[in-house]
Amino acid sequence: VRETYREELDRIHTGLVGMAGYVAAAIGTAGEALEHTDLEQAQDVIAGDAAIDAQQAAVDERIIRVLSLQGPVAGDLRMLVSALRISANLERMGDLARHLGQLTRLRYPLAVIPEPLTGTFREMAAQDAAIAADVRELIDTRDLALADRIHAANERVNRLHAGNFRAVAAPDWGQPVTCAVDVMLASRYLERFADHGTAVARKITYLVTGQWQPDPHTRK
Amino acid sequence: VRETYREELDRIHTGLVGMAGYVAAAIGTAGEALEHTDLEQAQDVIAGDAAIDAQQAAVDERIIRVLSLQGPVAGDLRMLVSALRISANLERMGDLARHLGQLTRLRYPLAVIPEPLTGTFREMAAQDAAIAADVRELIDTRDLALADRIHAANERVNRLHAGNFRAVAAPDWGQPVTCAVDVMLASRYLERFADHGTAVARKITYLVTGQWQPDPHTRK
Repeated sequence: VRETYREELDRIHTGLVGMAGYVAAAIGTAGEALEHTDLEQAQDVIAGDAAIDAQQAAVDERIIRVLSLQGPVAGDLRMLVSALRISANLERMGDLARHLGQLTRLRYPLAVIPEPLTGTFREMAAQDAAIAADVRELIDTRDLALADRIHAANERVNRLHAGNFRAVAAPDWGQPVTCAVDVMLASRYLERFADHGTAVARKITYLVTGQWQPDPHTRK
Repeated sequence: VRETYREELDRIHTGLVGMAGYVAAAIGTAGEALEHTDLEQAQDVIAGDAAIDAQQAAVDERIIRVLSLQGPVAGDLRMLVSALRISANLERMGDLARHLGQLTRLRYPLAVIPEPLTGTFREMAAQDAAIAADVRELIDTRDLALADRIHAANERVNRLHAGNFRAVAAPDWGQPVTCAVDVMLASRYLERFADHGTAVARKITYLVTGQWQPDPHTRK
């Protein structure tokens, strides 16, 4: 039974890493779709989210089976509970990539992001993609240097998000109201995506160090 | 030990009901703050969110302790895992009420919601408050009639949210761009709040019936 138990834990680990890989691919494609107003890529992200949801269901089912059948001890139990929470974060990151795809599809053949902000959104999407890749690596290796990098990238995303608020509020914002709304929704999806990435980083840090870093509410 | 185990499960149940009660109070106050541009109520919601977070931490800690020390069997295990997920939904609902409070405080002494939409937002906040009250009752009693009512209220919130999109995009929208952005953010917070309420309802329904109702992605 001991062998099977380790195998189950390994499969849960592999399942989370796999989910994170899908999420990284999804945000990459969603960023491309948004930048190039690419309907096909938008459709890919939307359709692909079902695969992430299915992976979550499979990982969670496995976690619950191990919890119920194996009676894991303290360290493994903490890991399993964290794994349940991390899979929820990853599933939500997949949703947010899908929301970007849906926004792109909704406005197609028009672009969601107007000219003066395309660079900002390219940068936000790139930071999110870097966060997702680091989250995948962090889950796999537990190298906490990656957690620091995720937090730093999240700070950059937060600053870009705040800048978008200022841009649509500025007197020289020469775009229609609907465009401002789209910009803010897209910006918020990208900002929330980064937030979930940092939430995963905090959970892994906690697993490794036993130290909990609370969610910095004041900055939201 | 059997006695203590039952007591622990009871305390987890009471903890979730208590959290849901705080969340119901928070969304009620957030709705009032938004409607009446009331800075004091906005501050109350913002400050009060820390209490919800602390409750979540306490409930989750208890759940993990029971999981680790008591080795619960199938039915209880499913309940405990659901409780972990429900506490995450409730915590997030608290965050969304806080976001409404923060938006009210940011614009104070100006109103966030312009005149023609105040009725819509009053209705959305009322539906969210009803959902939160029903969520509390549903967790407490597992009366699935409440789950149906939560889903119906969520449908209404979704329709009102879609109407807000149309309102800010309409040619006769005579408000500044920043106001449109605020309206859409507030609308999205209220819509997400209702979504989390239905997520709790789905989880309780699953616990009671064993039937999982998947998240209706197509409507988002």
